[in-house]
Amino acid sequence: MHAIAVRRGEDEPVLVEKPRPDPAPGEALVRTLRVGIDGTDHDVIAGSHGGFPEDDDHLVLGHEAVGVVADPNGTDLSEGDVVVPTVRRRPNGENAYFGRGEPDYAPDGQYVERGIVGAHGFMAEYFTSPAEYLVEIPDSLADRGFLVEPASITEKAFDLAFASRSAFDWQPETAAVLGNGSLGLLTLAMLDANDRFDRLYCLGRRDRPDPTIDVIEDLGGTYVDSRETPVDEIPEAFEPIDFVYEATGYAPHAFQTIDALAPNGVGALLGVPDDWTFEIDGGALHRELVLHNKALVGSVNSGVSDFEAGVDSLLGLDDDFYDDLVSGVYGLNELDAAFATDDSTIKTAVEFGRR
Amino acid sequence: MHAIAVRRGEDEPVLVEKPRPDPAPGEALVRTLRVGIDGTDHDVIAGSHGGFPEDDDHLVLGHEAVGVVADPNGTDLSEGDVVVPTVRRRPNGENAYFGRGEPDYAPDGQYVERGIVGAHGFMAEYFTSPAEYLVEIPDSLADRGFLVEPASITEKAFDLAFASRSAFDWQPETAAVLGNGSLGLLTLAMLDANDRFDRLYCLGRRDRPDPTIDVIEDLGGTYVDSRETPVDEIPEAFEPIDFVYEATGYAPHAFQTIDALAPNGVGALLGVPDDWTFEIDGGALHRELVLHNKALVGSVNSGVSDFEAGVDSLLGLDDDFYDDLVSGVYGLNELDAAFATDDSTIKTAVEFGRR
Repeated sequence: MHAIAVRRGEDEPVLVEKPRPDPAPGEALVRTLRVGIDGTDHDVIAGSHGGFPEDDDHLVLGHEAVGVVADPNGTDLSEGDVVVPTVRRRPNGENAYFGRGEPDYAPDGQYVERGIVGAHGFMAEYFTSPAEYLVEIPDSLADRGFLVEPASITEKAFDLAFASRSAFDWQPETAAVLGNGSLGLLTLAMLDANDRFDRLYCLGRRDRPDPTIDVIEDLGGTYVDSRETPVDEIPEAFEPIDFVYEATGYAPHAFQTIDALAPNGVGALLGVPDDWTFEIDGGALHRELVLHNKALVGSVNSGVSDFEAGVDSLLGLDDDFYDDLVSGVYGLNELDAAFATDDSTIKTAVEFGRR
Repeated sequence: MHAIAVRRGEDEPVLVEKPRPDPAPGEALVRTLRVGIDGTDHDVIAGSHGGFPEDDDHLVLGHEAVGVVADPNGTDLSEGDVVVPTVRRRPNGENAYFGRGEPDYAPDGQYVERGIVGAHGFMAEYFTSPAEYLVEIPDSLADRGFLVEPASITEKAFDLAFASRSAFDWQPETAAVLGNGSLGLLTLAMLDANDRFDRLYCLGRRDRPDPTIDVIEDLGGTYVDSRETPVDEIPEAFEPIDFVYEATGYAPHAFQTIDALAPNGVGALLGVPDDWTFEIDGGALHRELVLHNKALVGSVNSGVSDFEAGVDSLLGLDDDFYDDLVSGVYGLNELDAAFATDDSTIKTAVEFGRR
């Protein structure tokens, strides 16, 4: 079967041939429909994040998949079920985090991630997975099912952030997404559908006309150009922000978020920057966290319940939003377009098959 | 009546004479028993925190009080009730935070704090307070009632920190208190009484023999000398920490806490440092927050429910601990001893009267 992989020592995706996998006991065989591409894939291809499976000279890419069960193989699934796989898998040996169904809380070394670190991904015509990691989704979402994984990332971050404010009567009005990539825009749409927030902002560094700015404004959000308004000046230029969602991976944003927040606000951090030493006014930031009951929460990966919540959220979003967000779905002979990173590309997916 | 105040332009506590206050409608008159002294009082005396009431040339000190209702004045209280006052009061005009009973979440300018900023404190033979801000405590706690306010500060921080971990199945084992001042030691005792944690650490910078190290070890905790083991090296020298409680006000600790934490851990920040610019590896800290689902939560002040929880916690602590923690209770003619800051002083209070 065809698969898309990156080879050791190379830094671009290539089409490879692999044998169709056989499901082990407890696993189902899934025929792949579409697999989305995000920043993590580009980091993996560039070699700045993730890692190859031991003893393999390549890594099959892809962690945002949707497919159709081809062989339930004795599991509770049925042939034809539309499913989305979660990403983390047990490494050699069980551990407590997988035991209690929260692999997204497992520390380094206690997991592999399909398509990212230590395990092949889903960019192949078929893949297998333990049935417990396959989340059934409605047939109506099959074309868009590759967005369930990124939506689940945001659901988990929402959960962690909002839980941190559950000790008191939090009454937020404003939210800001830092980053106008596909995850940022999807999150903005999910915030727009969330009744908690009255006014939304989204940060980028693009000139108009720009398709991401159009998406922000179509959602009723305000575009913040970070070249004119640094994150910590958002309160002065616009208004204080109750909930900040950081999806830039730009390390100063994590700390500037403290000043962007309104009293009692929370910032969810999702970016994964490299080392970078810089100066901060640590006294002022520490004091601001304390005197205004502010919080920062980091969030990585997501679990089955987040995938299920992501499905519900996707069902509530408009067709127009999808049409604007998904800038292209490409075949196996169009990898250059699928993996493009120019300003006209927002969210792309590779199509392996149709229902 | 006698009161202890600091005058504008001065930086030491002095005994002053003031008229006994008359309770307004809705207020009770309280005869003061004891008022505790903490680091905030020293900051207020030094002029580095807080502020005088408008139109007054002095500020009556004290925010950790216990007293006996002398005149219920038509409120639901009864003469002889032992009560502890909360600290924040409405400034001119109502606001939403007071309206919903959460003045500890009000931002700057939307509150005054008795004995700290903009309103006289409780270091006087009598004080008045709206009955809604007087928390009844058992008679058996009357002598120790001045510890309810600091205990409430910790209860609120616990609430915020543990809420931030409520989105998943957090299974903490270790906790560390940064700071061996009176609040740090009281918190260590409260953690010791909390079944969540198996192993406790407390950070200081003192040589043995030292009474605070004795308290730490009597509680079964491990003393960490920060001159030998910086906060971010605690995992290597001891073990990763699931819950860090920062009570030093030393700004680098807020950021070093991120590295001290175990995966999925949370740091509660309570210190109030001055401005201080320094370098951090912001990329590594940001990444660590994200990849291990860590959180930082700031916490200031406390509300009535925290005072009530503090009462319950104090009832569970040993007599021996109190004897060690409270290094002295002094009369009005012993202000030098009451406000001393030498290494033999842990927690002191001024006694205004007896039951």
